Amino acid sequence: MKLFTVGPVACPPEVLEEMKRQMFSHRSKEYKEVHRQTVERLQRFLETENQVFLFPSSGSGVMEATVRNCVERKMLCCISGAFGKRYAQVGESNGKEVERLETMLGKPTTPELLDEKLSSSPDVEAVAITYNETSVGLLNPLPELAKVVKKHGKLLFVDAVSAMGGVELKVDEWGIDVCFTSSQKCFGIPPGLAVASVSEDALKQSERAKDKGWYFDFKLYEKYQKEQSSTHMTPPVPQILALNKELGVIETEGGKQKRFELYSKRIRKIKEGVEGLGLSLFPQKGYESPTVTCVNAPKEISGLEVYERMRERGFELAKGYGELKERTFRIGNMGYIPLEYVDEMLQALADLVK
Amino acid sequence: MKLFTVGPVACPPEVLEEMKRQMFSHRSKEYKEVHRQTVERLQRFLETENQVFLFPSSGSGVMEATVRNCVERKMLCCISGAFGKRYAQVGESNGKEVERLETMLGKPTTPELLDEKLSSSPDVEAVAITYNETSVGLLNPLPELAKVVKKHGKLLFVDAVSAMGGVELKVDEWGIDVCFTSSQKCFGIPPGLAVASVSEDALKQSERAKDKGWYFDFKLYEKYQKEQSSTHMTPPVPQILALNKELGVIETEGGKQKRFELYSKRIRKIKEGVEGLGLSLFPQKGYESPTVTCVNAPKEISGLEVYERMRERGFELAKGYGELKERTFRIGNMGYIPLEYVDEMLQALADLVK
Repeated sequence: MKLFTVGPVACPPEVLEEMKRQMFSHRSKEYKEVHRQTVERLQRFLETENQVFLFPSSGSGVMEATVRNCVERKMLCCISGAFGKRYAQVGESNGKEVERLETMLGKPTTPELLDEKLSSSPDVEAVAITYNETSVGLLNPLPELAKVVKKHGKLLFVDAVSAMGGVELKVDEWGIDVCFTSSQKCFGIPPGLAVASVSEDALKQSERAKDKGWYFDFKLYEKYQKEQSSTHMTPPVPQILALNKELGVIETEGGKQKRFELYSKRIRKIKEGVEGLGLSLFPQKGYESPTVTCVNAPKEISGLEVYERMRERGFELAKGYGELKERTFRIGNMGYIPLEYVDEMLQALADLVK
Repeated sequence: MKLFTVGPVACPPEVLEEMKRQMFSHRSKEYKEVHRQTVERLQRFLETENQVFLFPSSGSGVMEATVRNCVERKMLCCISGAFGKRYAQVGESNGKEVERLETMLGKPTTPELLDEKLSSSPDVEAVAITYNETSVGLLNPLPELAKVVKKHGKLLFVDAVSAMGGVELKVDEWGIDVCFTSSQKCFGIPPGLAVASVSEDALKQSERAKDKGWYFDFKLYEKYQKEQSSTHMTPPVPQILALNKELGVIETEGGKQKRFELYSKRIRKIKEGVEGLGLSLFPQKGYESPTVTCVNAPKEISGLEVYERMRERGFELAKGYGELKERTFRIGNMGYIPLEYVDEMLQALADLVK
């Protein structure tokens, strides 16, 4: 099966080889060296001097971490789809008040809307933004949104789950307080690991936080990283080894710009191919995601049927998400996808919709 | 390096092979089948009709889960070492009141002590017990302790992290409400996955819990398991594949009793070997752990030195934990340890201490 999933995505061969390495103690010298190197590579990748922590969790675990460490009472969630909604749900289930700035499905959060919202709700402490909303294939204008958040002096959490590794993220320049992803997206690693950069302001907030719990306590991550180059619990060693390996590959193969070029090239091929079949994309023009293409289903076939029939042909795409399950299907552009797979996938799709 | 660690432990070859499998979606039919099978095998292994959930976390994550789902105000932590202390810390950091029943290092919690404590503190809602306290190599008398907890009508949480898979655990017969472990101990899987059986009483408590959060919400685990044979976030697929594989191996190789016999045989060999060198064990006689041997360091060499010098000889043991770092060293008996490795390790240890 050739994968065009939205996560877990297909992993490159060198990553899978790394996953089968024999284990060793997370308190050993060998582990500490790998941990240190992985963190430094992520800092370079994100162009940040903030600390970067490694979490034994999925990306959603870091949503919970931001809420518990950095929000005392109230936060704002910008919602462009299912994962923005999840952020709000995580906030409320942790007892916080959540303001919502929700756009119609397929429309981005704009700087104007955000500015207006923050002016009328000056008491929110932090703003959560989904950079790339996987459920609708939409990329929010993060650099502009970040400026608005900083103008209002709020903490900024960025869910970069389906963005980091496939599209630029300048953490310090843009002023992101917590920027996180999980392993199974653009980095092309199996699931089980999340990573996040955490600013000094976020850590200060964590220091004051009450009842923040143990598992996601930023201050404990900081302490163990500084003192032991490790985590306060056992980390997912295979996924960390694999991520370290892949970050090394990115560095030796021309750096992150080269990687972003590959993503651009593939997404153009996918987008042009799909449109060439007379199909249209779901999100508003100009905001299409570079990592996942959300396609309106053709009149004769439902999105779900496209998904099932493509599977029969050996291609695992992604179903439409939630209320878009029938109306759309999605084509992932993350992880290990050789360019010739894209041609084959488009050919199979052509046979299906013609 | 031959591993006698206390986790992550060495994994058998079939587990490492499974770890390198190409990924697939956690919403696919293939994943659902693996998830369902893993859960059913764990239920058989634990002799329980309770639900068993798979957590994208370390074992300590499930400590946090029990506290947040099932404790409204106050719990009792039985402490025989570092991991009992951790449980108390997790309770307090989540804003709960924690009563402590702490024994001297190396001494077990006895049913008499527990009965007395519960009689004088009738307002605790739940009792947490570390079955096997890894830090001191001690096995608490769980079946007898469980009877006391149930007599007092309290919820029972069992940290079975370094026990499950190496020693018997009868969840329903003993009346354990939440019984958990992580992958990197007796099952011999890499770290990144925790598993727990959760009783109906625990789920009822979770239903009433306020501000319990999203990531560790038992009711969400239940919902997604029932409706989708999956989890509400992306699970650590490689570790689940590997655990399923290994549980299958245990079943086809004569069942869990056969596996426990292997653990008994190895631990006897280790214990007799160590004592044959004139060394003594740290914990109280009769309560020595079947999965990790905590050895008093010889007079001439500190525990830390034993650890370092054994490393030079190609054997990774475990350092003493916390305040026992100088006074003890530990020999793990978990995961992939062929019997001949035990002989070689004991020979190297003999050369060192003679």
